[in-house]
Amino acid sequence: MLIMVILQMSSSRKVVEFFYDVVSPYSWLAFEVLCRYKNVWNIDLKYKPAFLGGFFFFLGNIEPGSVDNKQRYLLADLKLISEYYGVPLNPPPVFNKETLLEMRFVTAIAEKNQEENVLLEKVSRELWKRAWQNNLDNTQPPSLIEAGLQAGLSANEVEELLTNAKSQPIKDKLKSVTQEALEKNAFGLPFIVCHVNGKVEVFFGCDRFELIAHRIGEKWAGPCPIKTTM
Amino acid sequence: MLIMVILQMSSSRKVVEFFYDVVSPYSWLAFEVLCRYKNVWNIDLKYKPAFLGGFFFFLGNIEPGSVDNKQRYLLADLKLISEYYGVPLNPPPVFNKETLLEMRFVTAIAEKNQEENVLLEKVSRELWKRAWQNNLDNTQPPSLIEAGLQAGLSANEVEELLTNAKSQPIKDKLKSVTQEALEKNAFGLPFIVCHVNGKVEVFFGCDRFELIAHRIGEKWAGPCPIKTTM
Repeated sequence: MLIMVILQMSSSRKVVEFFYDVVSPYSWLAFEVLCRYKNVWNIDLKYKPAFLGGFFFFLGNIEPGSVDNKQRYLLADLKLISEYYGVPLNPPPVFNKETLLEMRFVTAIAEKNQEENVLLEKVSRELWKRAWQNNLDNTQPPSLIEAGLQAGLSANEVEELLTNAKSQPIKDKLKSVTQEALEKNAFGLPFIVCHVNGKVEVFFGCDRFELIAHRIGEKWAGPCPIKTTM
Repeated sequence: MLIMVILQMSSSRKVVEFFYDVVSPYSWLAFEVLCRYKNVWNIDLKYKPAFLGGFFFFLGNIEPGSVDNKQRYLLADLKLISEYYGVPLNPPPVFNKETLLEMRFVTAIAEKNQEENVLLEKVSRELWKRAWQNNLDNTQPPSLIEAGLQAGLSANEVEELLTNAKSQPIKDKLKSVTQEALEKNAFGLPFIVCHVNGKVEVFFGCDRFELIAHRIGEKWAGPCPIKTTM
């Protein structure tokens, strides 16, 4: 009886997939909102680390910074929206970082802990904090080791994850998740895929949550529904 | 005494400038939301008809349709968001219309009725309805005449506005408003400029209203705060 109830609960939960790259500050904003709502809304939140660099390769150069006005707008917009979302950002003066090894490292964590994503959340947040609050490097192995330790991993665990990050299955996994996002019409990150009554609905950016709530039949109470400290 | 009170009320109203082109369905969505909120919020809403084609000329090709994934995403997004915003859209299969004469016509109306913008609202809405609900032409003078008559103008008034639309002062005005938006870091439309406590804050698109409300110290109650029929 209990098993049936659990199965029923589980099947009624709407699946929400969150495609992100830690290179993207808008991904961080969306990530924090989803972390706050994942237990408020009746959703099964699935993290999908992807590689934004791969998008540019497949779709051509669509980097937002390519138009001066857009770049200036995005900096001002990030400031306003990060304040409103309660995620303090301190954008570096120049940001043009390569996140391939970084996202393979994140993918290795996601693959090792498929059912338990607390660690994935901690490491992802740590990487965002390093890049977008403290302007620290995330491209080199020692940086990833620091981030892993800070997120609570042991030195051995970080070492193992770094080795895995360079393995073919992890490289292939990151590639296939990136491809999956592209096949769902993503053209940037974050990209949120909601499965609602057998239909797939997709949302780009961190500014569609009110609409997402409406579509999945949940309530939107602003980006900070619960008190948080960051 | 009464005059002083009115002056005080007027000076405390926040100025919100709305740059738009009727070529853009997202401009229509934002326009309807602002029409609903202009008397709910304590704002002085200023319509700024601009020419999106001029953006591409100044900034290079940044048309959203240039990437297939983005184009497919935008069509799906428009469907969801227009439902949620209560603005029924029926995007044409191909949309690549020139709106130079159309926006000069809108500018002529804005210039003739600087204090009274009800007519500007009616004609703009009519042009959006023609293009984005009924897939009708708006590029030719007879189409603009039809739109003007439908919005309640007399045949003589429409004729005069069409003549004005082709005059140098109106051409210059549309150019200068477009330039003004570009100088405020616009890279697309709609573009909303809020003057808050002596500061200028800018917002691109139709999905920043919750944040705008927060910044101007007003309350956001979703895109349909009052019952409307369209």
